[in-house]
Amino acid sequence: MTFPKNLFNSHSKEDGDFFLGITKILGFKPKTLSVYKKAFLHRSMNKKDANGNAMNYERLEFLGDSMLGTIISKHLYSEVPDGDEGYLTKMRSKIVSREHLNELGKDLGLINFVESRIPKSHFGQNIHGNVFEALVGAIYLDRGYKYCEKFIQHRVIGPYVDIEQLEGRVISYKSLVIEWCQKKKKSFDFDVYEDTGNDPLKHFAVKLSIGDSVVAKARATSKKKAEERAAKRAFFALQDKMEN
Amino acid sequence: MTFPKNLFNSHSKEDGDFFLGITKILGFKPKTLSVYKKAFLHRSMNKKDANGNAMNYERLEFLGDSMLGTIISKHLYSEVPDGDEGYLTKMRSKIVSREHLNELGKDLGLINFVESRIPKSHFGQNIHGNVFEALVGAIYLDRGYKYCEKFIQHRVIGPYVDIEQLEGRVISYKSLVIEWCQKKKKSFDFDVYEDTGNDPLKHFAVKLSIGDSVVAKARATSKKKAEERAAKRAFFALQDKMEN
Repeated sequence: MTFPKNLFNSHSKEDGDFFLGITKILGFKPKTLSVYKKAFLHRSMNKKDANGNAMNYERLEFLGDSMLGTIISKHLYSEVPDGDEGYLTKMRSKIVSREHLNELGKDLGLINFVESRIPKSHFGQNIHGNVFEALVGAIYLDRGYKYCEKFIQHRVIGPYVDIEQLEGRVISYKSLVIEWCQKKKKSFDFDVYEDTGNDPLKHFAVKLSIGDSVVAKARATSKKKAEERAAKRAFFALQDKMEN
Repeated sequence: MTFPKNLFNSHSKEDGDFFLGITKILGFKPKTLSVYKKAFLHRSMNKKDANGNAMNYERLEFLGDSMLGTIISKHLYSEVPDGDEGYLTKMRSKIVSREHLNELGKDLGLINFVESRIPKSHFGQNIHGNVFEALVGAIYLDRGYKYCEKFIQHRVIGPYVDIEQLEGRVISYKSLVIEWCQKKKKSFDFDVYEDTGNDPLKHFAVKLSIGDSVVAKARATSKKKAEERAAKRAFFALQDKMEN
């Protein structure tokens, strides 16, 4: 009598935890979990597939890097109709900069999923961006282009890509919000507190109140970032009012 | 009484010719013809859209370049399971090299569609590759990722991407075919003749016969290319036989 391969493995406690964790980050359920596992497999594990080929996240990183660039290109093409080729290229490289991707990967806590023989504390900053790219590659292989586009929209473009800010036209949403409050003679309060929870990295949360109401909340790895993020959300929520 | 915009324009003789010509190259019918027209609009035409933004192929070239790279990345990822990140990157840059894209654009005769105030004879070689990339961008905007992938499969990967040849492992299919014929004591004949037809560029056709049968035909812009292409087709057709 034979059993299907991995019948038991696929229900292990470890896989279950990985499934839940990754589903939370993706915002949808993975179909083929093994593709995502590969996205977090460091070369130090020395794993090989059935054909003897090295198995680690580096090939997925190659794929994800390319996919990410394309989806950002499409976004910029649509959002900046007056930008020429040179401008679009410059903006894209700002968005997909190593620094930016490292920040993204770190905020998502991707390093918690990494399997490695090297202690995680020994990795440089680039591990965060590298596994982020590998994750994008895995999404593409598992669910195709559309899901990949949605994930990038949701995780990169929505929270991080602000063309005005990238251009340096808006330096700080916090100062915009403060200016508006002063002009309108409204009180405001950025209530910042530590909110690390189960994260391995320290996190801060902000509640931004204008007058008596909380108008935005945000959470990030530094006080400044959390304030800026909350201010940005408030800015867009209040945009109509602020223009008057 | 108002008429829908472009009701008459869209049926002009000129548009009809463009539609037929472009459909032949694409292998499917375009939905929004204007996107493809933009892919062939040189900046010297100084066209602007309704919002005053410059209209030429350069922004589409930015998009198509990115899209092409991603689709080639995916192809390499699947086809070369034992290639590491560095190898995949090197192969991709060979495939999407300026020289290669210029050859592709030239073979498709894309320059015939270019609208420019500069005489076409004044353009350098890069115009061919640039409008090829712009065309890929237009396909993506008009029909989405899947069509773009199919077009690249059909027009780039199928006829041009041979990983063994890119690696230099196979120098010439012609010599492989000749070797096999000699070993098997079979006669062979590369019958080459000019076959330019309505193309603006000189073209050559080859009929490759082994023994009494024509085993492959091909057409290209040089005798050598046409022979190599026919030999490649024969090589794959005869592969089982050749291995014995």
